[in-house]
Amino acid sequence: MNQITGVTAPKGFLSTGLAAGIKPSGKSDVALVLNSGPEFSAAGVFTRNRVVASPVKLSREAVGDGTLQAVLFNAGNANACNGAQGDRDARASVAHLSKLIDVPVDNIAVCSTGLIGELLPMDKLLSGIEQVAQSLGDSPEHGEKAADAILTTDTVRKQTVVQADGWTLGGMGKGVGMMAPSLATMLVCLTTDAKVSADQAQRALERAVAVTFNTLDVDGSTSTNDTVLLLANGASGVEPDAEAFEQAVLDACADLANQLQADAEGVTKRVRITVCGTEDDEQALNAARTIGRDNLFKCAMFGSDPNWGRVLAAVGMADAAMNPDKISVWFNDQPVCLNSTGAPGARDVDLSGADIDVRVDLGTGGSGEAFVRTTDLSHAYVEINSAYSS
Amino acid sequence: MNQITGVTAPKGFLSTGLAAGIKPSGKSDVALVLNSGPEFSAAGVFTRNRVVASPVKLSREAVGDGTLQAVLFNAGNANACNGAQGDRDARASVAHLSKLIDVPVDNIAVCSTGLIGELLPMDKLLSGIEQVAQSLGDSPEHGEKAADAILTTDTVRKQTVVQADGWTLGGMGKGVGMMAPSLATMLVCLTTDAKVSADQAQRALERAVAVTFNTLDVDGSTSTNDTVLLLANGASGVEPDAEAFEQAVLDACADLANQLQADAEGVTKRVRITVCGTEDDEQALNAARTIGRDNLFKCAMFGSDPNWGRVLAAVGMADAAMNPDKISVWFNDQPVCLNSTGAPGARDVDLSGADIDVRVDLGTGGSGEAFVRTTDLSHAYVEINSAYSS
Repeated sequence: MNQITGVTAPKGFLSTGLAAGIKPSGKSDVALVLNSGPEFSAAGVFTRNRVVASPVKLSREAVGDGTLQAVLFNAGNANACNGAQGDRDARASVAHLSKLIDVPVDNIAVCSTGLIGELLPMDKLLSGIEQVAQSLGDSPEHGEKAADAILTTDTVRKQTVVQADGWTLGGMGKGVGMMAPSLATMLVCLTTDAKVSADQAQRALERAVAVTFNTLDVDGSTSTNDTVLLLANGASGVEPDAEAFEQAVLDACADLANQLQADAEGVTKRVRITVCGTEDDEQALNAARTIGRDNLFKCAMFGSDPNWGRVLAAVGMADAAMNPDKISVWFNDQPVCLNSTGAPGARDVDLSGADIDVRVDLGTGGSGEAFVRTTDLSHAYVEINSAYSS
Repeated sequence: MNQITGVTAPKGFLSTGLAAGIKPSGKSDVALVLNSGPEFSAAGVFTRNRVVASPVKLSREAVGDGTLQAVLFNAGNANACNGAQGDRDARASVAHLSKLIDVPVDNIAVCSTGLIGELLPMDKLLSGIEQVAQSLGDSPEHGEKAADAILTTDTVRKQTVVQADGWTLGGMGKGVGMMAPSLATMLVCLTTDAKVSADQAQRALERAVAVTFNTLDVDGSTSTNDTVLLLANGASGVEPDAEAFEQAVLDACADLANQLQADAEGVTKRVRITVCGTEDDEQALNAARTIGRDNLFKCAMFGSDPNWGRVLAAVGMADAAMNPDKISVWFNDQPVCLNSTGAPGARDVDLSGADIDVRVDLGTGGSGEAFVRTTDLSHAYVEINSAYSS
C-alpha cells in the first residue's frame, strides 16, 4: 500500500497544485499536469450534455489531433454558461500558460469545476497559473497537491496507479460519475509512460469509461464539464500489447470510479444493481438505470428497508421488454420477490450494511445483463445540494 | 365556499368510508361509491406502469364496456405483486360486495393503495365491505368519510365539485400524481349526474388527465395502482354539450391536481416549469419533465437557491432539440439567464415563497410549449420515504 500513486507515478510527468484564491474557502484550486515527453499521445472523453462549458469546447478541440502536452485545472468555478466571455477566458488562460511553459496553445487542455454561470476571476487565475508553472515537480507530493486542487465537495483525495510490465499508469479524479456527477463535474486525468498511439489510447479510454464511470449513476444528472483525459509519453520505452494496455486503463478507471462512488455526496450506502433476463444488454442497462434513478427506491436504501415493491414499481416504467408476471428480485443474494410475488422472509432481509447488492431478473428468458452502481438518497444529499451556490 | 363537495355532491350517488383494521394506525381504510342510476356510464384511465396491481387488472376489465355501478376502495394495502392470490383476493372482494348490494360483479371496480407485496387481510376486508355496504348515504358527510378512507400519507382530505347548468360533477382523490405518485398511488373518483355516454366520458377524462395529473411529476415514479374513474348516472336529466362537459371534467381534475401537488410528500415548494422555444409541444414536455425530475434542481428549489446553472445542466440532457447558445431562463418572471449566459442580478432573485415559477426558452425559434408541475426535494421527502414499509 506504500505504492507511489497519482499522476506523477509514471516517468516524465510533472505536476502540482496550489491555492489561487478562486475557492472562497482558500483551499487549493489550481493544478497543472505537464507531459515532458518524449511522446505526447492523448485521448479524451467528454460530457454528453448538450450544454457544455467553455473548457470542454476548448479541450475537445485540443485533443482532437491526438496530442496534448499539458492540462490546466481549476476548481471553484466551472466557467460554464458564461457565453463568449467564458470562451475568451478559457483561451486567455491557455495562452498565458502557453508562454510560461513554452507549449503551443493547441497542445493544452483545460478542465474547470465548480459553480456554473459565474465568470472566472481572471486576475486570480492568471496569477495562479504563473505560480503553478513555477512549482512543478515529479514527486508523489506534487501529484497529491494536484489531486487536492481539483476537489470540490469531495471529502477525500482520489488517486490511482497500475504498475505493469516495465511501465506505469497513474491518475487522479474528482466528482461523482460520468453519467451522473453531482456538484458540477467529474474530472479524471490519467498519465502513462507506456508507448501507445493516440488511437490506441482513445480506444482503451472509451472502453474503460463505458463500464466504469458510465455505470456510476448517483443522481441521473450529467454535468456541463465532465472530462476524462489520458496522456501517454512513451518514457518507459515499453510498447505494451493492446490487451494489457486496455486492462490497465480499465483497472485505473475502475479504481477511481470506486473511490468516486464511496465519496458521493451524502452517501451512506453503495448500491450495485444488476439486471438480467432481458432481450439484450442495452435493455438490461436501461432497466438498471431506471431503478438506480428512482428516488423512492433510493430512499428505501437509505432506510435499509427491503421494500422490493419499489424495485418492481420502478422497473415497470423502464424502456425494456419484460414479463410482468415473471420478475424476480434478490437483495444481497436473498430472494425477496419470485415471479412478481413476495418471497417468504423478504421483509426480514438485512440491508443494514454499507454495501447493498440488488439483482433483478425481468423474466423474458433472454441473456441480456448489465449493472449500474448508485447510492442512497439521504438527508445529507439534500443538505449539501440545497445550499451550494449560496 | 360552503358549497357541497365530494362524490355525493351530484344526485344519485351513495358513499361512505370506515375503519376495517387494514391500516395499522386504525384510521379508516375501506370506502364505497355506489351509483344508484338511472344510467351507469363510466370511464377510466389507469397507470402506464407495466407492473400493475390486481385491482387495476380487474377494474380495467370492469370499465371496459363503459359501465360501472360501484367502486370499492381500500387503503393500507396495494394488493400489488401478490401473484395469482392477489387476483383471487380482488375478485373475492368484488364477489362479496356484489351479493351485498345486488350489483353484477362485472359492474364493480376496485382501487387499492398502500404497501406493495403484502397479501390483503381478507377477513378484515370482507367484514369491512359488509359494514360499508350497510352504512351508505348521500350526505356531504358520507362523501367526506369516503374521501378520508382512501388516504395514505396524505395529510388532508381532497374533494372537488363543479356546479354546472342543472347538473353537478363531484370527486375525491388521494396521492400525488398520475405520472409520478409517491407512496404507492394516485386514486381519483369523479361522479356526475349529467347525462353523458361512456364514450363522451372517456374522451373528456383522457383529455383532462393529460393536462392535469399527467403534468404533475413529483418524483418521476409511476405507481402500479394509479386509477382515475368517472361515473355518470344522468340523474339530473340534463344532457350537457360536449364542450361544457369536458370543461367541467377538466376543472375538477385541475382542482384535485392542485390539491395533490400542495400535499405532496415533504413538499415545501410548489414549482411550475414551462418550457418554450422548442420545435413542438412534445419536445417542450420532455424538456420540462427532465428539469422537473432533476434532483440537483429540486434540491436548489428546497434551498430557495436561484442556481439557474442547474436548469441548464439538466435541460442539456433532455430529448429535445435546442440551441445550446440561446437558452434563456426566468425565475418568477425575472431573467436569470439570457442566451445561455447569466443575467445581471440573477443570484439575488427571491425564491423564498412557496410558489416558484420557472420558464425556459430553448432558443430554437419554434413555437413548442408545455409545462409540468413538481415539488422540491426536501429532508421531509427523504424522511417519509426511507421509513415506509418498516
